[in-house]
Amino acid sequence: MSTKICIVGCGAIGSLFAAHLAKLADVEVHAYDVSKEHTKAINERGLRISGAADFTARLHATTDAREIPPCEFGIVATKSTHTRGAMQQTAHLFGENSAVCSVQNGVGNEEIIAEQVKYVIRGTTFPAGHVIEPGHVGFDINGDTWIGPYEPTKTPYARVEKLAELLNRAGMKVVPLQDARGAQWTKLIFNAATNPVGALTLLHHGAATRFAPTGALFNALIAEGEAVAKALGITLHGDPRALVQKGASAPGKHKASMLQDILAKRQTEVDFMNGAIANWGEKAGVPTPLNRAVWQLIKGLEHSWTDPA
Amino acid sequence: MSTKICIVGCGAIGSLFAAHLAKLADVEVHAYDVSKEHTKAINERGLRISGAADFTARLHATTDAREIPPCEFGIVATKSTHTRGAMQQTAHLFGENSAVCSVQNGVGNEEIIAEQVKYVIRGTTFPAGHVIEPGHVGFDINGDTWIGPYEPTKTPYARVEKLAELLNRAGMKVVPLQDARGAQWTKLIFNAATNPVGALTLLHHGAATRFAPTGALFNALIAEGEAVAKALGITLHGDPRALVQKGASAPGKHKASMLQDILAKRQTEVDFMNGAIANWGEKAGVPTPLNRAVWQLIKGLEHSWTDPA
Repeated sequence: MSTKICIVGCGAIGSLFAAHLAKLADVEVHAYDVSKEHTKAINERGLRISGAADFTARLHATTDAREIPPCEFGIVATKSTHTRGAMQQTAHLFGENSAVCSVQNGVGNEEIIAEQVKYVIRGTTFPAGHVIEPGHVGFDINGDTWIGPYEPTKTPYARVEKLAELLNRAGMKVVPLQDARGAQWTKLIFNAATNPVGALTLLHHGAATRFAPTGALFNALIAEGEAVAKALGITLHGDPRALVQKGASAPGKHKASMLQDILAKRQTEVDFMNGAIANWGEKAGVPTPLNRAVWQLIKGLEHSWTDPA
Repeated sequence: MSTKICIVGCGAIGSLFAAHLAKLADVEVHAYDVSKEHTKAINERGLRISGAADFTARLHATTDAREIPPCEFGIVATKSTHTRGAMQQTAHLFGENSAVCSVQNGVGNEEIIAEQVKYVIRGTTFPAGHVIEPGHVGFDINGDTWIGPYEPTKTPYARVEKLAELLNRAGMKVVPLQDARGAQWTKLIFNAATNPVGALTLLHHGAATRFAPTGALFNALIAEGEAVAKALGITLHGDPRALVQKGASAPGKHKASMLQDILAKRQTEVDFMNGAIANWGEKAGVPTPLNRAVWQLIKGLEHSWTDPA
């Protein structure tokens, strides 16, 4: 019997997971997304991936979650700002034995998913992509994914291992961990430094890393995030500064996703990045003036769209 | 014999000083500015002021400082970023008994002026205006000006008093002080909070004050500036928060000058605002992470014009 998996949010990242999993004969993939154009294209022509891998996968995509059967796994890949709305549409698909894994940016998504499903898996993913056109996603950068039980839901580790096994067999690189917080916070701290600075300065990642003032701000933001992680007892999975440097040495001018959001006047994920670090810092008694300040600035920038100068 | 005064930089603020002084029978005003259109219009039709006062003043304006005779006073009203260049053009006008007064934003301009002239006057001015068209300046907000000796040049206080007397007789409100640092730092701290936040968020002053996250950031930036002033032994001339509130309750949507600079892709005065507070803080052993961070962000934003994403 095939394992049914629902991809909740089939944008660039969700599409990479969906297309890989759809290659497995023993997996049935259903993709839920709000884009009528994208889901229609996927159903008509398959989901095409090009870049770090090139293939087209056949799978079922829909904007109506009622068309999807009960699933053993969910993989949530919406923007953090859409987690609650997407789960309200899809939570009914996941029963007593199902587990739903977040592969989103920031921290705080698992908490929202756990409001509506029994077992949640904490995930962090490094592959990057972008939607080229409906039904076609560019696979820009390959990378690892780390998954582990979301602690409060006491997700059986066998669920984590099974999901990792499927994804690895599908050609992704997924590491199951008993404690996946370190990987998530490493990426969080990286994102919370590079994303708001890119969004506020309009600098691409390489320029912001190399320009001394913004490079120094990256490091100062990272140091605050590390102090919070340490106070929470989280051992980071590598140095966020290495991710900064790796990104800066990549070819081309990469715009941080938050900069892309700002340019498109879309609500950003700052609440799940700098907002989360500042709030966890407050709980742990660690001062985070810089993460608080960039959160305030990004919220202000979002607010300017409704009260323009 | 009439007192010759050179206005160095005859933009909105310089024009307000020039036009008022030109009303006095015993004062001869020469305005130096880089704008050919503005100086030509002033020479042909006079300098028109409208708004908080309405009148047209006759005075000599030029883009060539060699046309200007030796002057007893200078009033420097360029953007801080142009102080050095403007003084290189005009320093020869000011002799052994002349005094040159900065009425510019931020701190650090007196230091630059003192590189080239003997006596410098520290000034802070609150009137606001904008250039409506060449030769015509809108007088948006009336306000006080505080002037006092720039300490290192040991400017005789009689020079300060004479300049204040002339300006007051011309209809401005000018207060001579033995120590003018308090007024300057009060405006500096106000500007260093409101200007970069406006520039980074694109919020007009009222919206940034009323929106809770940016309003809180104003207060946090102000607290840092106050701590630096205190460590330097400077007693502020009132509460910068009162200036924030006063500005927020003014009618209309006022864009901070730094936001106007950013929108026009002009280099900002951030080095003379947050950069100065951070550097003075470092000298005084007072941490200023937020002023440093917004300095870094504004420098990054300026840098994006040469290395766009």
